[in-house]
Amino acid sequence: MIQAFQGKIGIIGAGALGAFYGARLFRAGHDVYFLMRRDYEAVRERGLVVRSVDGDFEIKPPVYPSVEALGVCDLVIIGLKSTDNGALPSLLGPTMGPGTLVLTMQNGLGNEEAVVQALGCAEGASQRVLGGIAFLCSNRISPGVIDHTAHGWVHLAELVGPAQSRTHSIAQLFKDAGIECQVFDSLKEIRWGKLVWNIPFNGLGVAGGAAHTAAILADETLDRTARGLMEEVLAAARADGVSLPTDLIDRMMESTRSMGNYRTSMQVDYEEGRRLEVEAILGEPYRRAKAAGIAVPRLEMLYGIVRRLDTLTGAKLPPK
Amino acid sequence: MIQAFQGKIGIIGAGALGAFYGARLFRAGHDVYFLMRRDYEAVRERGLVVRSVDGDFEIKPPVYPSVEALGVCDLVIIGLKSTDNGALPSLLGPTMGPGTLVLTMQNGLGNEEAVVQALGCAEGASQRVLGGIAFLCSNRISPGVIDHTAHGWVHLAELVGPAQSRTHSIAQLFKDAGIECQVFDSLKEIRWGKLVWNIPFNGLGVAGGAAHTAAILADETLDRTARGLMEEVLAAARADGVSLPTDLIDRMMESTRSMGNYRTSMQVDYEEGRRLEVEAILGEPYRRAKAAGIAVPRLEMLYGIVRRLDTLTGAKLPPK
Repeated sequence: MIQAFQGKIGIIGAGALGAFYGARLFRAGHDVYFLMRRDYEAVRERGLVVRSVDGDFEIKPPVYPSVEALGVCDLVIIGLKSTDNGALPSLLGPTMGPGTLVLTMQNGLGNEEAVVQALGCAEGASQRVLGGIAFLCSNRISPGVIDHTAHGWVHLAELVGPAQSRTHSIAQLFKDAGIECQVFDSLKEIRWGKLVWNIPFNGLGVAGGAAHTAAILADETLDRTARGLMEEVLAAARADGVSLPTDLIDRMMESTRSMGNYRTSMQVDYEEGRRLEVEAILGEPYRRAKAAGIAVPRLEMLYGIVRRLDTLTGAKLPPK
Repeated sequence: MIQAFQGKIGIIGAGALGAFYGARLFRAGHDVYFLMRRDYEAVRERGLVVRSVDGDFEIKPPVYPSVEALGVCDLVIIGLKSTDNGALPSLLGPTMGPGTLVLTMQNGLGNEEAVVQALGCAEGASQRVLGGIAFLCSNRISPGVIDHTAHGWVHLAELVGPAQSRTHSIAQLFKDAGIECQVFDSLKEIRWGKLVWNIPFNGLGVAGGAAHTAAILADETLDRTARGLMEEVLAAARADGVSLPTDLIDRMMESTRSMGNYRTSMQVDYEEGRRLEVEAILGEPYRRAKAAGIAVPRLEMLYGIVRRLDTLTGAKLPPK
């Protein structure tokens, strides 16, 4: 019987993802503390409301308007959008004790490395970082209100080396909260595996003029392109030491067929005029493939197009 | 001394391109007759106005509201957008005598074949068709008013076989009107040569969120993608029997640099919410490459993206 991780858990980036998992952990009796900026007043007054396919619930958790108020944690879970990674140094600093662990549940490649950098690249910093992949459909629909529409399972791994007992303890946190959580021995493997799907469907969802998954599958040329992108990602993963199963493409295309008119997170961001996670989902995989000498012509084009669309959209957003 | 083509010349598709060349030929004393629908009243009342970098002028040409009124011609010059090729059978029918020649000056691949089909694929039909490529920057800015901002030269070839004396006679029409016109022995060569430029800059100009040429060149990833697309088009051309010079890519990228913030015709159509010439510029070259077994991953993706953007009616441009 594995014991769930014990200690103070801080949620940084309590949006659709961080607030959902934080609320589930809190409801399960864990010591969860939320950093909230935009939603601070709403949650302090009315609590955090989760409307969920698994059952609606509300909690009244401890919430803080600043990381200084949040203070040192034993485990920090990062749910920030990767576009906000520039804020990691100032966000993490006040929460870090000598043994604090950091679990980033962000999308794409490069987030764990951004966390290590934010920790000042101190000796052993990378040993304190874990990565998690969330298969979750949720939205923040108003201040302090999260709408969870599907899924929610989590894949976990250490940034460096195979799973340890602490990895399993953190996984147990999620399991205690009724969330499926699998532990893996290679973070690269689960990150690249997710990208095989995320790159074509997030990228084409934006470049194809806000195309939900069914629209991509319904177009023979875009369907072919999605498969071609997946082949490029598999080749890039191989060059990075990750061998993904060869039938993955067919299986992913098949399971996407059952998703209906699904809108990826990048498509939703695009339609809402928000910054796109273009570097984590497209740019960093592209740079790694290129550095390894792998030809990724479709990924290169998709990255170029989406990055440009992101600058057009971002330029019109009000300054933060 | 070559004699210019003699006879009745009908202009079908008298928009920015057809009206410009027709007006220049008319001003040079040739027998030019215009089919006009949208602009019929304006031109009948006030004539055709050409504002031009080569000097403004106005003409009062014969103009007809229907092809039946235009009647049989000796030479028909087609300036229609390729998206209107479905109308070719009804447009060409009443203008065709037994010896009528047809010169299509439309963009991309497949237009000459559409003309041959419109002529009912009668024996010898393909011997009556020529293709012309216009290097022209012009716009129809209001009914009966054309704004010619740059260039204007023409490349001409027979659809079947090398240049004949009639090819040179038709070229002389343009030359008499002060328009540079070169005759070639291979239509495929000049069509593919133009596509080397048109495919990346028209395609990325739309897919990249209305990106003028300078925006593409300024983005390292899009610049690389443009070059990669050019390589694919060169390979597809080779498979179609056309050997283009290997330094063409560098030369084209260099000369594009001098064009500034140039907007391609497809980008302008996109921004104005008009139908895109996606099949002539991207679809037909893609299909020919595919039929020849040439790998064109970038062209495939670009075609898929632009075709989808073309089908979307609202929300075509990135969210503001």
